[in-house]
Amino acid sequence: MSHLHPLDENDPLAAKRDAFCLPNGVIYLDGNSLGVLPAHVPERMQHVVEKQWGESLIRGWNEHNWIDLPQKVGNRIGRLVGAEQEAVVACDSTTINVFKVVSAALALRPGRKVILSDNGNFPTDLYMAQGLADLLAKDHELRIVSPEDVADAITDDLAVLMLTEVDYKTGRRHDMKALTEKAHAVGALAIWDLAHSAGAFPVDLSGSNADFAIGCGYKYLNGGPGAPAFVYVAPRHQNDIRPALTGWMGHVAPFAFDLDYRPAEGINRMRVGTPPVLSLTALDAALDVFEDVDMEVIRQKSISLCEYFIAQVEDRCPEMELVSPRDAEVRGSQVSFRFAEGYALMQALIANGVIGDFRAPDTVRFGFTPLYLSHADVARAVDVLEKILTTRMWDMDEFRMRRKVT
Amino acid sequence: MSHLHPLDENDPLAAKRDAFCLPNGVIYLDGNSLGVLPAHVPERMQHVVEKQWGESLIRGWNEHNWIDLPQKVGNRIGRLVGAEQEAVVACDSTTINVFKVVSAALALRPGRKVILSDNGNFPTDLYMAQGLADLLAKDHELRIVSPEDVADAITDDLAVLMLTEVDYKTGRRHDMKALTEKAHAVGALAIWDLAHSAGAFPVDLSGSNADFAIGCGYKYLNGGPGAPAFVYVAPRHQNDIRPALTGWMGHVAPFAFDLDYRPAEGINRMRVGTPPVLSLTALDAALDVFEDVDMEVIRQKSISLCEYFIAQVEDRCPEMELVSPRDAEVRGSQVSFRFAEGYALMQALIANGVIGDFRAPDTVRFGFTPLYLSHADVARAVDVLEKILTTRMWDMDEFRMRRKVT
Repeated sequence: MSHLHPLDENDPLAAKRDAFCLPNGVIYLDGNSLGVLPAHVPERMQHVVEKQWGESLIRGWNEHNWIDLPQKVGNRIGRLVGAEQEAVVACDSTTINVFKVVSAALALRPGRKVILSDNGNFPTDLYMAQGLADLLAKDHELRIVSPEDVADAITDDLAVLMLTEVDYKTGRRHDMKALTEKAHAVGALAIWDLAHSAGAFPVDLSGSNADFAIGCGYKYLNGGPGAPAFVYVAPRHQNDIRPALTGWMGHVAPFAFDLDYRPAEGINRMRVGTPPVLSLTALDAALDVFEDVDMEVIRQKSISLCEYFIAQVEDRCPEMELVSPRDAEVRGSQVSFRFAEGYALMQALIANGVIGDFRAPDTVRFGFTPLYLSHADVARAVDVLEKILTTRMWDMDEFRMRRKVT
Repeated sequence: MSHLHPLDENDPLAAKRDAFCLPNGVIYLDGNSLGVLPAHVPERMQHVVEKQWGESLIRGWNEHNWIDLPQKVGNRIGRLVGAEQEAVVACDSTTINVFKVVSAALALRPGRKVILSDNGNFPTDLYMAQGLADLLAKDHELRIVSPEDVADAITDDLAVLMLTEVDYKTGRRHDMKALTEKAHAVGALAIWDLAHSAGAFPVDLSGSNADFAIGCGYKYLNGGPGAPAFVYVAPRHQNDIRPALTGWMGHVAPFAFDLDYRPAEGINRMRVGTPPVLSLTALDAALDVFEDVDMEVIRQKSISLCEYFIAQVEDRCPEMELVSPRDAEVRGSQVSFRFAEGYALMQALIANGVIGDFRAPDTVRFGFTPLYLSHADVARAVDVLEKILTTRMWDMDEFRMRRKVT
C-alpha cells in the first residue's frame, strides 16, 4: 500500500484517474502526443459499431443523429476553448483544417500578401500555408520568424498571423490575446492552432478575439489515434467566408443534391465530406470526462505537476538542460529538456515504463495531463530518469537503434 | 424452413452472407449508401481500442504499424479496382480527395482551362471542382453536360475529364476505358470517381489508363459510416505532381520536422494529416471479406440480382418506371425506378423491412450487394413492394412526413 504523496493530498481531480485505462507499470507522460483511453470509450465504440451501424444501417443518420455529430462534438470542444456556441465543428484533420482557415483568412484580406508564422509552429501548418500560397500563385509570402520575434514582426503588410499557441517542442506559450490584438491593430487576422492547448488549460478564443482556430482531437482531448480535429471561426466572420473546400456537407442543403454549391449558414460551411461516425463517436465519448471539470482546476494541477517535475529533475539530474520556459505563465502543459543523447535516453525511459517522447536533435518531451497523472507519478518518473542517468543505461546499444516514428 | 430459391442454387457467394451482421427482418437494398457490418469487425474494433490504443498508447504507431495503414488499406482496395501496387492510399474523405486530384491534374495541364463533367456526377465532386476553380482564379471553367453528351464534349480545350463511373441516381455506367482514351486523344487527363464501383464489380484502372481516381470506403467496401476514402494516382504521374494539400504525412520525412515541405515519393504524397486509426482499422477489417472473392463472380451475381429485380418489378408493379439502363453492360450494381410519390413509397418500404433509398424528386434506388443478398431476398422485396402498391399503403400520412436525411 503506497502512501499518498503530500502534493496529491486534496487533489480535486484524483478521482478522475479511474476514468482512464492506464496500462500497468507505465507512467504516461505523452498525453500531448496521444491521450490515454477513457475507460468508457470501448463500450461506446462497441455500441456504435454493433448497434448503430450494425442494426440501424443507413437509418443511423437519422436515428442516431450521426449527421449532426460534427456540430455536437464541436460545441463540446468549443466549451473547453472559450468559443461561442455554434462556432466550432469537429471534422477532418488538423492539417486539412489549416488549409480551410488560411484560405478563408487570405480571402478576407485580398490586398495583403504576407502570412506570418514562427519556426516553433508545427511543420504541417507551415507546409499547408506554403502549399496554399503556391497554389494561389498570387505572390503570397510565408514569413517565418523566431517565436520571440513574432510580436515585433507584426507589421501592416500582414494578411494573417498564424501561430500555434503552445510550441510542440518547447512548451513555450504565446500570449494569444496580446498577439491577436496586435494583429488586429495592423489590420491582420489571427489564426491559432490549439493542438497543445485544447483540454490542457483554459483557452479563451472569444475573449481573445481570435479570428480562426484549429486543433487536435487526439492529444489532451483523448479522442484516440488520428481522431477528428476541429475548426473554429469567429461568429463575425462565419457568413463572410466562402470556403475553399466546398464539400457537400458544407452546402446549405446537402440532400437537395443541387448542381451548384451554396454555403451553409455559419460554421457548418467548414464541413466538407461525410462525417467519420466511428471516430467522431470515440471523440464524443472521450469528451465526457471533461463534463464536470473546471479547466482552471486542470490548469492549477498542470502547473503544480510541471513545477514539481522541473524542480526534481534539476535537483537530481543536473545533466538535463531545461528547454521549456521556467515561468508557468508562458508554458503549456509539457516540459522539455535537452540531453545530447536524448533519443537513446527516451528509449531507456520507455523501456523502464516512463513514456515521453523525443524530438530531434536532442529534446526529450514530457506531457502532463492532470486528469490521469499524480505527483507520485512524477516522483517515480524522476526516480527512473535519475537511475538511467547515474547508471548510463541510455548508452546501451538497444536504446541507440533508430525508431521509425517518434 | 424456407426452400432455396431456384436462382440461388449453386451461388458461389452463398456462404458469404454469414460474414455479415444482417438485422433480423430487414432486406437491405442500400449497400450502395452504407454497407452492412461485417461480422468480424466489432472484435477488430474492440482490439484496436482496448489493446492497441489502450495498452500501446503512443507506441502503437510503431508496434501496430498504424503509420502505414493508409498504404496497407490502399493496396488492398487497389487490388479490387485494378490499380498497380503502391498506387492507392486510404485517407480523408472522397470529397477532400477530389480536391487533391483535380488540383494535381490541372497543374499537369497548365495551358488548359476546362474541366468537363456531367450532371449525373455526385454534387460534391462538382462543388469541389468549382470551389477549386474559384480559388485558383485563373478562369478555369467547369463544363457540365448530360451523361450521354460526354463523349462528344471531349474537345481539345479540356484539361481534365472528371466523371463518376456509376451515376448515383440512375446506376448508368460510363465506359471508363473508352472515355479515358478519348480524353487522352485530345491531351486531357481523366479522373474517375469509383464511389459506386469499388467493391461492386471489377474495375480496371490500370488497363483503362486512368490518370487519377477516388472512391468511397463506406458503400460496397463496407467500411462503416463515414469510413476513410481512397485516392489513386497512376504511377506515371506520381512523382510529377506537387500536391495542393501539402500535409506532414505527405512529406518525404514527416518526423524530421523540417520547416520546408518536400513531397514524399510516389502515392504517399497524397497523404495529408495524421491517419484516422480507428476508422481505418474498421475499413481494413471490412476488406477481409473480399480476400477470397473474385470480383467477376460478384459481377455475375450482381447482374443476375438486378435483372431478376427489374423483371419482377416490371411484371408485378407496372406503376414503376425503370430509370436505370436496361442493359447490364452500362449499369452498375443498383436499380432505380421512378414513382411520383417515391418519397412516401420508400418510407412504406422501409417500414415494411425493405430498405432502399430515395433521391428527389421521384426516384427510388435499390442497391444490390452480392456478398450478402440472395435472389430470395429480391423476391421478398418485390412481394412487399407489390403489396404496398396494390394497397396504396404509401398514401398513409405517416409515410408522407419529411425526413431530414436521405
